[in-house]
Amino acid sequence: MPAPLNVGMIGYGFMGRAHTNAYLKVPRFFPELGRRPALKALCGRNRERAVDFAEQWGYESVETDWRALVEREDIDLVDIGSPNDSHREIALAAAANGKWVLCEKPLAMNVAEAEEMTAAVEAAGVPNMVWFNYRRVPAVALARQIVDEGRIGRPFHYRATYLQDWTIAGDIPQGGETLWRLDAAVAGSGVTGDLLAHSIDTAMWLNGPITRVTADTETFVTERVHQETGALQPVGIDDACMFLARFANGSLATFESTRYARGRKNFSTFELNGNDGSVHFDLEDPQYLDFFEHTRPETGGQVPGHLTGWRRIHVTNSEHPYMDKWWVPGCTIGYEHTFINALADFLAAAGEDIPAQPDFRCALQTQRVCDAVLASARTGEWVETGVEL
Amino acid sequence: MPAPLNVGMIGYGFMGRAHTNAYLKVPRFFPELGRRPALKALCGRNRERAVDFAEQWGYESVETDWRALVEREDIDLVDIGSPNDSHREIALAAAANGKWVLCEKPLAMNVAEAEEMTAAVEAAGVPNMVWFNYRRVPAVALARQIVDEGRIGRPFHYRATYLQDWTIAGDIPQGGETLWRLDAAVAGSGVTGDLLAHSIDTAMWLNGPITRVTADTETFVTERVHQETGALQPVGIDDACMFLARFANGSLATFESTRYARGRKNFSTFELNGNDGSVHFDLEDPQYLDFFEHTRPETGGQVPGHLTGWRRIHVTNSEHPYMDKWWVPGCTIGYEHTFINALADFLAAAGEDIPAQPDFRCALQTQRVCDAVLASARTGEWVETGVEL
Amino acid sequence: MPAPLNVGMIGYGFMGRAHTNAYLKVPRFFPELGRRPALKALCGRNRERAVDFAEQWGYESVETDWRALVEREDIDLVDIGSPNDSHREIALAAAANGKWVLCEKPLAMNVAEAEEMTAAVEAAGVPNMVWFNYRRVPAVALARQIVDEGRIGRPFHYRATYLQDWTIAGDIPQGGETLWRLDAAVAGSGVTGDLLAHSIDTAMWLNGPITRVTADTETFVTERVHQETGALQPVGIDDACMFLARFANGSLATFESTRYARGRKNFSTFELNGNDGSVHFDLEDPQYLDFFEHTRPETGGQVPGHLTGWRRIHVTNSEHPYMDKWWVPGCTIGYEHTFINALADFLAAAGEDIPAQPDFRCALQTQRVCDAVLASARTGEWVETGVEL
Amino acid sequence: MPAPLNVGMIGYGFMGRAHTNAYLKVPRFFPELGRRPALKALCGRNRERAVDFAEQWGYESVETDWRALVEREDIDLVDIGSPNDSHREIALAAAANGKWVLCEKPLAMNVAEAEEMTAAVEAAGVPNMVWFNYRRVPAVALARQIVDEGRIGRPFHYRATYLQDWTIAGDIPQGGETLWRLDAAVAGSGVTGDLLAHSIDTAMWLNGPITRVTADTETFVTERVHQETGALQPVGIDDACMFLARFANGSLATFESTRYARGRKNFSTFELNGNDGSVHFDLEDPQYLDFFEHTRPETGGQVPGHLTGWRRIHVTNSEHPYMDKWWVPGCTIGYEHTFINALADFLAAAGEDIPAQPDFRCALQTQRVCDAVLASARTGEWVETGVEL
Repeated sequence: MPAPLNVGMIGYGFMGRAHTNAYLKVPRFFPELGRRPALKALCGRNRERAVDFAEQWGYESVETDWRALVEREDIDLVDIGSPNDSHREIALAAAANGKWVLCEKPLAMNVAEAEEMTAAVEAAGVPNMVWFNYRRVPAVALARQIVDEGRIGRPFHYRATYLQDWTIAGDIPQGGETLWRLDAAVAGSGVTGDLLAHSIDTAMWLNGPITRVTADTETFVTERVHQETGALQPVGIDDACMFLARFANGSLATFESTRYARGRKNFSTFELNGNDGSVHFDLEDPQYLDFFEHTRPETGGQVPGHLTGWRRIHVTNSEHPYMDKWWVPGCTIGYEHTFINALADFLAAAGEDIPAQPDFRCALQTQRVCDAVLASARTGEWVETGVEL
Repeated sequence: MPAPLNVGMIGYGFMGRAHTNAYLKVPRFFPELGRRPALKALCGRNRERAVDFAEQWGYESVETDWRALVEREDIDLVDIGSPNDSHREIALAAAANGKWVLCEKPLAMNVAEAEEMTAAVEAAGVPNMVWFNYRRVPAVALARQIVDEGRIGRPFHYRATYLQDWTIAGDIPQGGETLWRLDAAVAGSGVTGDLLAHSIDTAMWLNGPITRVTADTETFVTERVHQETGALQPVGIDDACMFLARFANGSLATFESTRYARGRKNFSTFELNGNDGSVHFDLEDPQYLDFFEHTRPETGGQVPGHLTGWRRIHVTNSEHPYMDKWWVPGCTIGYEHTFINALADFLAAAGEDIPAQPDFRCALQTQRVCDAVLASARTGEWVETGVEL
Repeated sequence: MPAPLNVGMIGYGFMGRAHTNAYLKVPRFFPELGRRPALKALCGRNRERAVDFAEQWGYESVETDWRALVEREDIDLVDIGSPNDSHREIALAAAANGKWVLCEKPLAMNVAEAEEMTAAVEAAGVPNMVWFNYRRVPAVALARQIVDEGRIGRPFHYRATYLQDWTIAGDIPQGGETLWRLDAAVAGSGVTGDLLAHSIDTAMWLNGPITRVTADTETFVTERVHQETGALQPVGIDDACMFLARFANGSLATFESTRYARGRKNFSTFELNGNDGSVHFDLEDPQYLDFFEHTRPETGGQVPGHLTGWRRIHVTNSEHPYMDKWWVPGCTIGYEHTFINALADFLAAAGEDIPAQPDFRCALQTQRVCDAVLASARTGEWVETGVEL
Repeated sequence: MPAPLNVGMIGYGFMGRAHTNAYLKVPRFFPELGRRPALKALCGRNRERAVDFAEQWGYESVETDWRALVEREDIDLVDIGSPNDSHREIALAAAANGKWVLCEKPLAMNVAEAEEMTAAVEAAGVPNMVWFNYRRVPAVALARQIVDEGRIGRPFHYRATYLQDWTIAGDIPQGGETLWRLDAAVAGSGVTGDLLAHSIDTAMWLNGPITRVTADTETFVTERVHQETGALQPVGIDDACMFLARFANGSLATFESTRYARGRKNFSTFELNGNDGSVHFDLEDPQYLDFFEHTRPETGGQVPGHLTGWRRIHVTNSEHPYMDKWWVPGCTIGYEHTFINALADFLAAAGEDIPAQPDFRCALQTQRVCDAVLASARTGEWVETGVEL
C-alpha cells in the first residue's frame, strides 16, 4: 500500500474544490503511485464555510489561519489555492517548514515575488509545482509529443487566444470571496495573470522561450461596486490584453485574451505552424487535437497532395497521454481530469526526486512574460522579457 | 449528515469501476442528497482480483458469491455489473431480499427475462433503475428539455447511429472476463443489446414508443478463438445491425450500429426533426447539442430567414441540466459523469419514493424493441414491438 | 479552334439554367476539348418565356415543340431538361434522329421506360449521359479515387442521407411549371426519384451494385392545391423514403431521404467504412472530403495509434479532381461547377468514342434500385433489385 | 436590351481570368442591370499569350501597350489587372481619358500613389472601384447586414487572420509573370498588400476606421532565384506580418497574415465581438457565417441561457445577400462569384450615379493602414494611420 501524503489545503473556493477532487481520485486511477494523498486539513478564513467544506469533502480537520497550518507537523504538502496576493507569504513559510508546495497560478503578483518564492523552495529543496493544469489536457500533451517527435519541424508561427465573456455586464461587482479576480489589489492583474499566464505557459512548453513582446490592454468597464462593501470603485484590472511576441527560435506569435468576447466561454486556443506540420487546439473541444502533417519524419517524404488535410485526432485512445488511465477509446474526460493528471505527474516526479513541471522556476519565466506584457502596455514599446534561455 | 446507503457492487470490470467512481463522487457534488453511498462490499468471482479492486477503490469487504452478497443484512443496494447472463437471477434474488436494485444494461437476455425481473422488483416495491447512463449526458437531457418545451413540434424523423471499430481485427478473441460481450451465450446479442439498446432507450425517451421495425444484421468475422480456452468457435453475435422503425407518433426512423465502422470509436448520434425545430447529438462531442430553431414557441413566430442555422450549444452553462453541480461555463465534464448524474437522479427519486427513470419497466420496453429487431433480422419481415403505449 | 457542337436545350427551368451555364463556361475552363458547345436552340412550351430565356442566355433560336427541335438538322445534341414524364418520348425521338442525348435524372418514370430508352440510344450508337452531376463534385470524385487506390479495403458499411426541408409547409401547392416535382403523375415519385436517385448513383459508383432492399415511405402532407388549377388534390409522391440495402460485395447500407428534415437544405451525405479506411462527404460542405486512414496501402503499415483521426481534406488542391481547371488552392467552386465538370467529361469521352459515365445503361441500374425501393415500400418485404452485376 | 459597356481588360493572369469570367456571367445572372459588358479588348505585354487568351475568352481585339488601350474611343471601362507597380500610371491615364476604372487591389504601391489616383478619378468624375472581392462573399455581406441591424451592439474586439502556406519552400523563384507577388519592386510589399489589404478592407467596412497600429514583420526565406533571369536575389517582401490595432470606436484588434502557416491555404478569418452578439467567418468555409446571438434587438431580451450557442448559418437562402440571383437553398457558390457579385454592385451603382464601394477613396484608407503597419514594423512603435474618420 502506498504511504499517505498528508495534504493541507488552503482555500475552499473553486480551486479548493478542483484540487480536493484530484486528491481523492488520483489513487483510484493512478494506483501505481508511491504516495496516496490524505485530506488532513482544510484552511479557510471563514470557519463555518471551512467546516462545511471539510465535511462535504472529507477533510479531517480545519484551520482558519494558514500560519497554523504550515507549521503543523502532520502536514506533508501545502497546497496554496487562496487569492494571488497571499501566495508569496504562504509559499515562503511552507518552504521554510520543509513542506512540499503546490501553488495555484499565477505564481505571484509580480516577478520580484516569484523570484523570492523560487529561491525559497529551491533553498529548502522541497518538491514544488504550479497548477498550470492545462498542460495536462491529453490533447495538449499530445501536441508536445508531436513536437518532440519532430513532426512540426522549423517553427514559423504561434498564435493563442484565451477568450471569455462572463464580465461583460457592468453590474457585476468586484472583490470579495468569489470575485477577487476582478480586484487588482488582490489579483495583481486581470486577464494577463488569470488567463494569458496559461497561454504563455503552454506556449513556452511547446515552443521555447519568449524573448520580447509589445502589448496593449484595455479596461472596458471602469467602475464596479465592491462585492462586500458595496462601495463604487475604479476597476484596476485589464479586461483585455493582446500582444505580439518573438520566440528565441525566431518564430512569431500573437496572443490575445479578454473576458469580453461574447459567445466564448473558455475558449483557449493555440496553433503552431512549422515547416513540416501544424497543430491546433481549442479548450472548448478539449478531446481533439488538430494536426496537419506535411512531411513524415519517419521517411522525410511528403504526404501525397490529394490526401493532405487537417486531421482531427480524438484524443481518447490508449496510446494518448494519460488516457490508458481512464476509460476506453471514444470516452472523454473533462476539465477536472487535468488536475488529476497534473497531480499524478507531480507525485510520480516527487517519488523519483526529479522536479515536476512546471515548477516554481518554470512559472517564474511565465511571470516574466506577464510583467513584460503589462510594462509594454503602459509604454507602447517592445519589452525584453528576460526569460532564461 | 446524510444517512449511509450500503452498496454491494457485483462486478469489478469496466462497469464496476465506472459505478464505483460514481458512488465515491456523488456525495461531493450532490451534497443535498439524503443518502450517501457507502462502499460496503465488492463481489467478484476471482478473489485475488476482487481484493485488489476492493483495496484500490475502498470497499470494506469482499464476496466471491453473489448469493452471499444479496443476503447480507448490511447491504441496502445491490448493483449488478456482471455479464448479461447473470442479471436475471441476481435481480430476482436481490428483490426477494428487499434490496434496492441497479442493473447494467441491457436489462436481460430477452423479453421473458426482463418481464420476470420487472415483476419481481415491482412486487418487492424496491427502488430500481437500469444504467442507461447516456440519458444523463447534459446535452441529451437538454434535448429532452427542448422537446418538452415544445421547440420541436410535430416530429417527422428520427435517426440514430452507434458506430465503433474495435472488433474489426479477426484475431481478437471472444469470451472470458474482458471479452464476454463478443460471446453470444453470455451477452445475448452483439451490438443490438450492447449499443442499440442505448440508442433505443434515448429514442423512446425523446420521441415515445417504437411500434414496429424491420431489420438486418451481419456477422463479418464468423470464427474467433475463445479468450480463455483458446478453442476456435463460431461467432454468435451480430457485428452489425440496422433497422427501420416507426414511432407511435407516426414519425419514421433509421437505426444502425456496428463495431466495423473504421474511424468511429464511440460514435453514438441521434437527430430528431420536427415541424418547429431539430436537434442533433454526437457522443464523441458530448459537450454539444446542435439545435435548429425554426419556430419560437414563445411567440409562434419564425426565426428570420437570414438568421436560421444550426446552433451549436456548448452545454456547460449553469442553466444546463446537471451543470450547476460541476464547474463553470466552458468547462466540460466527461464520460464518467453520466454515471454520477444518473446515480444522483436515482437517489433523489428514491428519497421521494418516486420511480427513477429508466426503471426496469422502462428498460423492458427497450428489450422489446431489441427482441423485435433480432426477430425481424431472422425473418426479413416487419415485426410489431409490443412496446406499452 | 474546336468545332462547334450545336446544342438544342429542352427546358428553361432550374435545370435549363444550370445546363446552359455549363455550355457557356466549359470552353473557357476546358479549352482542350475538341468540341465547343453552341447555343443553337432553346425549346419551351411557353413561347414568351422561352424567348426571354433565349435572349438572356444567348440562344440563337426558339422552339415550342420538342418534336421540331429533335428533327432539326442543325442540332447535334439534345439536352432533356423537361419534367420526368417527357424524358422517354424525347429520348427515343432524339436517338432515332441520331442526336447525342443528355438527360436529366431520374432517367425515366420506371424501369420499363429506362430499358426502352437505353436500348434506343445504344441501337442508335449515339453518345449519351444522364446528369448525375454530384459525381462531379471534386470531393466525391476524390472519394472514388481513394477507393480505386485501395485505401478503403474490404467494405463493411455504406450510409447515405439526402435531407431537405422545403416542403414542410402544407400550403405549398403542387404541380405546374415550378412544382411538378411534387406531382406524382409528372415526377413519377417523390424523394426516391428526385433525391435518392443521386444517392444511389453515387453509392453504386463507389461501392458497386446494390442487390436487394427493404424500404418504407411516407407522405406527411396528404392533400395539396394544384399550382395552376387551384384544385385540392391528393398527394401522390413519397415525402420521405428510407431503406436498408445489401451490396453485391456483402456490405450493408442504410439510405434515407426526406423533404421534412427541418434545418437540412441540401444535406446529401455518404460514408463508406472499410477495413483499411473510411470516407465521409456532406454536400452542404462540398469542398471537403473526410478521410480516415487506418492502413497505408503503400506499405501495408498502420497509422500510429496516437496520430489516427479523420482528416478533413479541403479539396481545392491542383492534385484534386477537376481543380487544376479552376482557381488556386483554397479557392472553392460551387454547385454549378458540377455540371460543367460533368459536361467536360462527357465531351472528352465523346471525343474519344468511349461512353461517358453515367450513361443511360448505368442510369438504368439506378432506376432498378428506385423501383425496387418503391415496390418494397408497398409490400414491406425485401426486394431483389435486378441490377446488372 | 441593356446597352453594351465596352471593356478593356489589362492583364491575362489569374485576375484577368477571374474578371473576364465575371464580365461574361454578370448579364446572365443579373439581367436587370442597365449595361451589359462587352469584351472589346484584351491588353497584355506578350502578344502571343494575349491572342491565345483573347480567343479562349472571346475578346474582340488585342493590345500590347496599355497606353493604346486607354486611348481607344471604343473602350468605356478600363480594368487594371496588371501588377501593382503599373496601377498608378494606368489609372491616371484612364481617368484622364474619361474611362470608368476598375483596379485590382492593393490600389497602389503606397499612400502617395493612392492619393494621386483617388484625386484623378474624382476629378474626372468617373465611376471607379477597387476589386476587394471578398466583401461580396454572401456570408461577409451578411455579417455587415447583421452589424447594420444592431445585432452586435457595442464592439469590443475584432480579430483577423489571413494564412497561406504556398511559399514555404525555399526553391520557389520570385518575380516574373506569375510570381511578381514575391518581388517587392513590383508588388510593393508582401502579405501586407496582398493579403492583409483584404482583411483591413473587410474590417473597416464592418467596424469602422482603424486609427493606430503596432506591427512586426518577418522574411523567412531571405534569398530567392528570379523566375526569369535566374539570378539569386535578396527577398524584399514581408513573408509574414502581424499587428495590433485600435478602431475609432474604441475596440481592439489583432491582425495576422503569413504565407508560412502549414496547412492553411486561403484561411482568411475574422471575428467581431460586441455587447449583443458576435460573428465569425472563415474563407475556406465561405458558405457559412457563425453568429452568436446574446440580445435580440427586436425585443431587447436575451436568448435563454440554455439555448445560447454559435449558430452556423449556411448562407444559401434566398434571403441572403446575392443568393436569390444564383441557385436554390443549400447550393453553394464559389470563389469566382465574389467577382461577379462585385461587378453587379458596381454596374448597379454606376447606373444610378452613386459611388460603388469600395471606390478609390475607400481603398486609399486601406492603403493608409498598410503603410502605417509597414512603418511600425520598421520602428517598433505605434503609428497613427491617418484614416479619414
